Amino acid sequence: MPVNYTPSLAHDLLPVSGLSIGIAQAGIRKVGRKDLTVFLLDEGSSVGAVFTQNKFCAAPVQVSQIHLAATTAIRALVINTGNANAGTGELGLQHTKETCYALAKLLNINPDQVLPFSTGVIMETLPIDKLLAGLPSAIANLDVNNWYAASEGIMTTDTVPKSYSEKIVIQGHEITITGISKGAGMIRPNMATMLGFLATDARIEPSLMKGLAFDLAEKSFNRISIDGDTSTNDSFIVMSTQKASNPVIENWDGELAQQVKQALTRAAQNLAQAIVRDGEGATKFITVKVSGGSNASECRLAAYAVAHSPLVKTAFFASDPNLGRILAAVGYSGIKDLDQTKIGLYLDDVRVVVNGGRDPLYTEEMGQAVMKKSEILVHIQLGRGDAEDTVWTCDLSYDYVKINADYRS
Amino acid sequence: MPVNYTPSLAHDLLPVSGLSIGIAQAGIRKVGRKDLTVFLLDEGSSVGAVFTQNKFCAAPVQVSQIHLAATTAIRALVINTGNANAGTGELGLQHTKETCYALAKLLNINPDQVLPFSTGVIMETLPIDKLLAGLPSAIANLDVNNWYAASEGIMTTDTVPKSYSEKIVIQGHEITITGISKGAGMIRPNMATMLGFLATDARIEPSLMKGLAFDLAEKSFNRISIDGDTSTNDSFIVMSTQKASNPVIENWDGELAQQVKQALTRAAQNLAQAIVRDGEGATKFITVKVSGGSNASECRLAAYAVAHSPLVKTAFFASDPNLGRILAAVGYSGIKDLDQTKIGLYLDDVRVVVNGGRDPLYTEEMGQAVMKKSEILVHIQLGRGDAEDTVWTCDLSYDYVKINADYRS
Repeated sequence: MPVNYTPSLAHDLLPVSGLSIGIAQAGIRKVGRKDLTVFLLDEGSSVGAVFTQNKFCAAPVQVSQIHLAATTAIRALVINTGNANAGTGELGLQHTKETCYALAKLLNINPDQVLPFSTGVIMETLPIDKLLAGLPSAIANLDVNNWYAASEGIMTTDTVPKSYSEKIVIQGHEITITGISKGAGMIRPNMATMLGFLATDARIEPSLMKGLAFDLAEKSFNRISIDGDTSTNDSFIVMSTQKASNPVIENWDGELAQQVKQALTRAAQNLAQAIVRDGEGATKFITVKVSGGSNASECRLAAYAVAHSPLVKTAFFASDPNLGRILAAVGYSGIKDLDQTKIGLYLDDVRVVVNGGRDPLYTEEMGQAVMKKSEILVHIQLGRGDAEDTVWTCDLSYDYVKINADYRS
Repeated sequence: MPVNYTPSLAHDLLPVSGLSIGIAQAGIRKVGRKDLTVFLLDEGSSVGAVFTQNKFCAAPVQVSQIHLAATTAIRALVINTGNANAGTGELGLQHTKETCYALAKLLNINPDQVLPFSTGVIMETLPIDKLLAGLPSAIANLDVNNWYAASEGIMTTDTVPKSYSEKIVIQGHEITITGISKGAGMIRPNMATMLGFLATDARIEPSLMKGLAFDLAEKSFNRISIDGDTSTNDSFIVMSTQKASNPVIENWDGELAQQVKQALTRAAQNLAQAIVRDGEGATKFITVKVSGGSNASECRLAAYAVAHSPLVKTAFFASDPNLGRILAAVGYSGIKDLDQTKIGLYLDDVRVVVNGGRDPLYTEEMGQAVMKKSEILVHIQLGRGDAEDTVWTCDLSYDYVKINADYRS
């Protein structure tokens, strides 16, 4: 059960004009499961993307990057679950190329206009024949109203589908934003086995799309952590079908541009946080805010150290205010010349630590009361400057071990 | 149950001439538990130490460092369990100073000749009155044959006491080495809540002791990882009572010096590995060796990424050869310009990955057979150079979560 997350209903997910989606059951890992999804974008659409920083990135990540470098006219996405096609060497690359080639042929576009994505078990050969055989069914299924089915089609260990949709009217122009994401473990900065697909019809200058994907990821998918592992396959894609009536956004300065970006950020954050809320075995959603840093980068160091610490995460699972573990994590986070006598720590509104020591007014009961909640704010003050940053994470439970020990069984 | 580790029997632990140990039940956290240990060194002894790199280091770590800087004539160590006296601010420092002062008075030495150590829960006030009240009993108990009781006296979540003892004869000189350690979770490079105390009677030039402690830690306590957390209290101390008959070791070049250092390294590695074998919830002992690096430092980066990965560790727990997770960890370890097509991976003698892809001869059954063992060698080849390094770790089990969620209850 995800933490305070209710999946959207199918009819809540608004179609984005110029984008249709088809889903098929290709039997890639198990039969009777939606495991193949195709996105088809109208001509004239634009795409921006960011990918895992893992050097051992999967074949589809390598090929997607090549295709994005080769053309600005991306027309299709193909996503399979059940197999990540990572650690598969030259054969894996060949399989991904075959996939793009086959889909391009069926859609009458060029292979480099296809972006491929895979998620699932690493280091197993992709059952390419099953995947190719499933493509015609996915294409036959293409429909603008298929967002909900797509949100199911990209799930792996997710317990619920994740999606977000919103219609905004800015200066008389109606703009639609709809997206889906999948997690759920192995999430961390620079993403992890997560996929995020966000689409809008807002007209945006194509040259802005790459930077937009980066900016959105920095405020959403790059600020979440489940277990500190970074996957080989993470990808976040922003698409614009350019079908809305707004004047083309040529930079992010104007009122309309800012409102569009805010809405897209809201959508990306919602999709990213949904991954944490459905983190493997998660029972709590924890916001780790670090303020008072010399710069944002050291705030992130401290925040991630806390968010990745198995000791901190098990304490949250147990609702045990063993909060010294948070101080310990800040202490080893790698911030240079950290002065422990300036550190402060709040749990929601409860001041726990002042000047690096336990607040004399703090009681175990006060900490316990916060720890029992399902949504908790950990606020660490470094006392060194004005910078701050925030990451989102979840606790570490028995079920995390169970899920990851049993993943393939 | 630790993995393939049988604690020494009391009579196996050889006394080190010039060093006596006293243990008491001070009731610091629970009554009826050995929780206070005093080491008394004869005059003329020498001590070297390394401490946690955690910036949020505990009061005793701060005071020990001050005392080591102030005098070379350390005469006593005092160790309490049940409370780490970390995150306790100015009051914590005062408590540690009071402890040293009280012990010094009882032993008729100076307070700065005492090194204090604490381990246990962080951020709770040290019950200083109980500790001080226990000191006379500990002193009354001083005896050269108390190593076994001391190995029990420093335990926290350890399931077994950890110790090592050996007598060597080099060039006709009899030299004794005896040590104890405690873990068990929260261990990682630069140590974590681990304490290690290693003593010898070998005559060693006092100015070598600090470097000796560093060198030994680099081959033992700084090469282990349980969960990636680094504690506020880690300390490793090497003591020489200078009572043996060997000519004083003035550098590590000669035959005798090398043999002494090898024996001390063996002892330190044994004590460090015992911590991993008794890692919280551990069911397997895993050696992660990375070879073919441009330098040892990048080999360590990769080895620690693997050793810290919760996904890798749960796979080992489940005996599931989901070995792509190892590749993923190497990929995100931070090695610059890593070429995935040069990576190789062996599990014991089984070649799993060659040229960054699955070995065509590798079968799931071969991997499974190794994964079922309780001692496993993971060997990663980077294909970039001749450097290598090794770390030791354990798997991540249900019991890790249970122990850390229940630690204080």
